Amino acid sequence: MAGLKALERAAIVAVGSELLTPSKLDTNSLVITEELNRLGIDVVAKAISGDDRDELAAVVRGLLDRVDLLITSGGLGPTDDDVTREAVAGVVNRALVEDREITARIRARFIARGLPGPMPEINRRQAMVPAGARVIPNPNGSAPGLWIDEGDHVVLLLPGPPRELRPMLKELAAGWLKARAPGLAMVRRVVRVTGRIESHVDEALQPLYREWERADPKVAATILATFGSIELHLTVRAPSERAAAASLDAAVAAAAAVLGSHVYSTDGRSMEEVVGDLLVERGLHIAVAESCTGGLMASRLTDVPGSSRYFRYGVVVYANEAKTTLVGVPAALIGEHGAVSEPVAVAMAEGVRARSGADLGVGVTGIAGPTGGTTDKPVGTTAIAVATAGGTTVRTFRFHGERGLVKFQASQAALDLVRRLVSG
Amino acid sequence: MAGLKALERAAIVAVGSELLTPSKLDTNSLVITEELNRLGIDVVAKAISGDDRDELAAVVRGLLDRVDLLITSGGLGPTDDDVTREAVAGVVNRALVEDREITARIRARFIARGLPGPMPEINRRQAMVPAGARVIPNPNGSAPGLWIDEGDHVVLLLPGPPRELRPMLKELAAGWLKARAPGLAMVRRVVRVTGRIESHVDEALQPLYREWERADPKVAATILATFGSIELHLTVRAPSERAAAASLDAAVAAAAAVLGSHVYSTDGRSMEEVVGDLLVERGLHIAVAESCTGGLMASRLTDVPGSSRYFRYGVVVYANEAKTTLVGVPAALIGEHGAVSEPVAVAMAEGVRARSGADLGVGVTGIAGPTGGTTDKPVGTTAIAVATAGGTTVRTFRFHGERGLVKFQASQAALDLVRRLVSG
Repeated sequence: MAGLKALERAAIVAVGSELLTPSKLDTNSLVITEELNRLGIDVVAKAISGDDRDELAAVVRGLLDRVDLLITSGGLGPTDDDVTREAVAGVVNRALVEDREITARIRARFIARGLPGPMPEINRRQAMVPAGARVIPNPNGSAPGLWIDEGDHVVLLLPGPPRELRPMLKELAAGWLKARAPGLAMVRRVVRVTGRIESHVDEALQPLYREWERADPKVAATILATFGSIELHLTVRAPSERAAAASLDAAVAAAAAVLGSHVYSTDGRSMEEVVGDLLVERGLHIAVAESCTGGLMASRLTDVPGSSRYFRYGVVVYANEAKTTLVGVPAALIGEHGAVSEPVAVAMAEGVRARSGADLGVGVTGIAGPTGGTTDKPVGTTAIAVATAGGTTVRTFRFHGERGLVKFQASQAALDLVRRLVSG
Repeated sequence: MAGLKALERAAIVAVGSELLTPSKLDTNSLVITEELNRLGIDVVAKAISGDDRDELAAVVRGLLDRVDLLITSGGLGPTDDDVTREAVAGVVNRALVEDREITARIRARFIARGLPGPMPEINRRQAMVPAGARVIPNPNGSAPGLWIDEGDHVVLLLPGPPRELRPMLKELAAGWLKARAPGLAMVRRVVRVTGRIESHVDEALQPLYREWERADPKVAATILATFGSIELHLTVRAPSERAAAASLDAAVAAAAAVLGSHVYSTDGRSMEEVVGDLLVERGLHIAVAESCTGGLMASRLTDVPGSSRYFRYGVVVYANEAKTTLVGVPAALIGEHGAVSEPVAVAMAEGVRARSGADLGVGVTGIAGPTGGTTDKPVGTTAIAVATAGGTTVRTFRFHGERGLVKFQASQAALDLVRRLVSG
């Protein structure tokens, strides 16, 4: 591909009428942007088109001249409203021709997956290819991706389902896209913080912002607040990935020094991964007794591959009776203090620890809402206890937001308490 | 405004360089779409531009001819990178003139809010108005909105912060926009299906698609495949909300008749809400024993407010020992058939039912991956059993995708099995 212009400016077009409704967002473009930026390719525009050939063609036509690389996601399915192939072929003036290898592959896929009946005839649409396009294999679905060279420009058609798009994108980033990338690397790092509010984090970082602004290469910082976590996104563009990474390492270390133990991750790991790694490192087992989080803490812990190495078991003891039967919380204790109280959280943590034989027992009890709150204990009130051989720690929190958010924040605070205790 | 063309087709442009990074999504367009659809105005395209005057001008120019109404959000702030006014004024060929009333209002706002010092000179930018534009007051911020009539077209500039944009939009929807609305209502309904793949659902619906295409009012249909669920989105535009709803009721009923018991929701409810409502209706309690889903099924069940009415308890019995201790699965049974097997799923379901005293017991055991698969039992193999007073039903599934997806699909299939058994 020597001699071809580097791909510096990209546009991303998400295709799908559902993305023009009030309930769906295009999230594929975030993943695509991340991969492109890593290669030093800038995303200068994004667009969303419905499943309408003419509309999509107009969008593609409007963007194509302004960028080096235009990526579409979606609209490669087998049905009538999958129009991306047709729309793009029209814009770049190519005929659509059936690629029999693709047809054969789709047919084989139907047989291999034991799907009932033969391949529906409509799937043949997925084998239609604009003349001259390069086919990008799709190991996770029936529609292949397509790479079209149009003069110095590239149009790249990717499937919409994330589990098909992501691996295909990784392959391209390591191969065809990398070969056309400009010589600049853009690297991002995320510092994850919990237990602090956004404006405090922002204030603490002010002196660093000024330093990063003057640095060479410059470190760009953005703060993003999500429930239960604040993310500091740091970005550096440098002539090499190594140079960018070195500059980021220093910036991450400086931020971590300012924010202290509130930082739980600087390398992309989630809270449950950080906790899992700590437990493996120390050779510890954990067991959890959950009331208001309803299984979410166990589910997050077991989201991590290999979690059977440290996850002993979990109980979801929503009802008071279950708290007594499964982890031995005395009914009298619940009667005296209420189910949402520090003594009950402690009894849950100690009970599940004793019964499971795990090194750590966690008890979470709270009011997820929307009902069940009182003046004393409003919705969001949550008691969290962690029992270890050395004793039991208990804290009461008050979380805000709707039911799902209270559940998530409670699970986050419980995992964070485990993290702090285990890392000492 | 008599005589002016109704606004039927709209495009929404979000302005802001942060919306072109891998971590930010344009969510303003969802709110805008909802308001427009309610007025019968269709959103046919969305776009996102960075804070660059020329880029934004190109986006606006490309969209303006294709729609009746173009709405921008963002880029009306006081700083140099707030370029929406300049970009749009350029496209519609108007001079920017200072509106002294706006300047006075911003100045008063600074004083009223007790902000330190006088109004910074840069805020004067916010008083610049394309000649002939109508000014939309902003009670929640300093930048007013702008309404520009350009022939039959309208360009509407709204501020980016949601707390400024939303009230302004409400005002417009009740006033200026309503006056130009097409007098049509647009209503949406979603039919949710599980246990079928997209192309089979699509094929089964072909005759209906043709019927809907010819119907008056026309029913627009889009299929959306997500893991564990396929969504059929139906949209109708009709002279009144009532007429649209009646036509949708008929369409939903026709789709449900074709797809049969695979349809689990036609009114927006999630699978866990449907199952919860069924359990309440029949006065039944449920308890779950989860291995591969790791608490996700309990967490989904307890995501529903009021789930304490039917959720007895859950155990997350990842380890074999836990299966024996907590739900009485005989170790010999695990030895003979393996932990992922129908006999073990049955023993888990019956064990948790017996111990909890619930009417229904669910057992889920599978290989979530990425490791742990064998030739006989590849990753994704999952046995699901539901025990009731009438006996126990067990099924084996093979799910595809990464760990999180296998977990979700397994929880979905288990909830669906409960749904089918309870609804009889």
